[in-house]
Amino acid sequence: MHGYVHDEIGPDELARQEALYGPLAQAVRELADAVIRTEVPEETVREAQSEVEAITKRLREQQMESSYGIRFNADGHARAWGNAVVGLRNPVAPPLEVKRDPVGKAWSDFHLGAGYEGPPHLVHGGVAALILDQILGEAAGAGGKPGMTGTLTLRYRRGTPLGDLHAEAHIDRVEGIKTYAVGHISDAEGVTVEAEGVFILPKWAREEPATPRERFE
Amino acid sequence: MHGYVHDEIGPDELARQEALYGPLAQAVRELADAVIRTEVPEETVREAQSEVEAITKRLREQQMESSYGIRFNADGHARAWGNAVVGLRNPVAPPLEVKRDPVGKAWSDFHLGAGYEGPPHLVHGGVAALILDQILGEAAGAGGKPGMTGTLTLRYRRGTPLGDLHAEAHIDRVEGIKTYAVGHISDAEGVTVEAEGVFILPKWAREEPATPRERFE
Repeated sequence: MHGYVHDEIGPDELARQEALYGPLAQAVRELADAVIRTEVPEETVREAQSEVEAITKRLREQQMESSYGIRFNADGHARAWGNAVVGLRNPVAPPLEVKRDPVGKAWSDFHLGAGYEGPPHLVHGGVAALILDQILGEAAGAGGKPGMTGTLTLRYRRGTPLGDLHAEAHIDRVEGIKTYAVGHISDAEGVTVEAEGVFILPKWAREEPATPRERFE
Repeated sequence: MHGYVHDEIGPDELARQEALYGPLAQAVRELADAVIRTEVPEETVREAQSEVEAITKRLREQQMESSYGIRFNADGHARAWGNAVVGLRNPVAPPLEVKRDPVGKAWSDFHLGAGYEGPPHLVHGGVAALILDQILGEAAGAGGKPGMTGTLTLRYRRGTPLGDLHAEAHIDRVEGIKTYAVGHISDAEGVTVEAEGVFILPKWAREEPATPRERFE
């Protein structure tokens, strides 16, 4: 399928790529935070811009034609390294490290800084939705029914402060190709945003046995 | 209010800051895209990482204590330059340029690249939610009732391809402090994701006259 790449790299090559691209992406996340918050003199800002443009030019000398897609290792596990929530190589992603339990649960402890702001010092309501879509989808996938999001409903109980946060989700029920998942985001004081979602098994997966598998969205 | 800064800069200073920080953030957006897609030799990647870290260090020599918050110009308009969807200074934001009509409409034409991927070559379902939260909220604000998101419901009709997209929303109805807004994202072939949201006028705004004003989330 378009965008699913079976490069089937082995464990050594996987470790090499993780150690190479992970720290680069993390460095760019830090840079993005600094760009929002810097108060250095104008000349320093302009120099930074020129240097960033030069680095980008060098990195683009050889590059993939489009986005990262999903790539499969030799062991069958997938790398969603371009994913906007969990992508190891994606500086837009916080990124979340998501834990999964095959009973149909997923959870993550993570930190959101200045780049995820909506109202002052609060997480953007849409960023909460972004994260919950991923966590609910991972719970559905952990339970054996990966899916594309069909519907997603968010209830905002109060503002979510930027900083250290937790998200979790579990499967509520499965009806044929539809998996219903529920979850929430919380800070140290309790739940801030609740979510429920319906995840629909894609057509290409319906003939396969319903074994636990990774979710790629 | 905490995080709302009345620095009340004039038009010249506003123009200077836009011309300074806008291109820097755009350069970092390009860099983030290159980090996801690069295939240059390992040594070039490592050099890029060191250089990025050095730039970040210099930018951090003087910086705001936390996130950008909302800042007000001399003319009363707000700058949400740290916002995760529309922030001029935020490399995480695409950013969207949102048009508004005081009848209670908001819309935007925008481009999403490799950093916003979920399934291969498709927009992450949560990114669609992120953008629709902003656009629906802006429609509510354009119509005179700014608000924090109360609830948000997304219906995914089909996958949204990465690339050139459109989003729009309008106020469906207002009931006291609650503004109901509806909208969608579309590509050249039509609607991909529909949304409806309830936006609740914050307590601090309830005593003020309900004139059209900007929405800050």
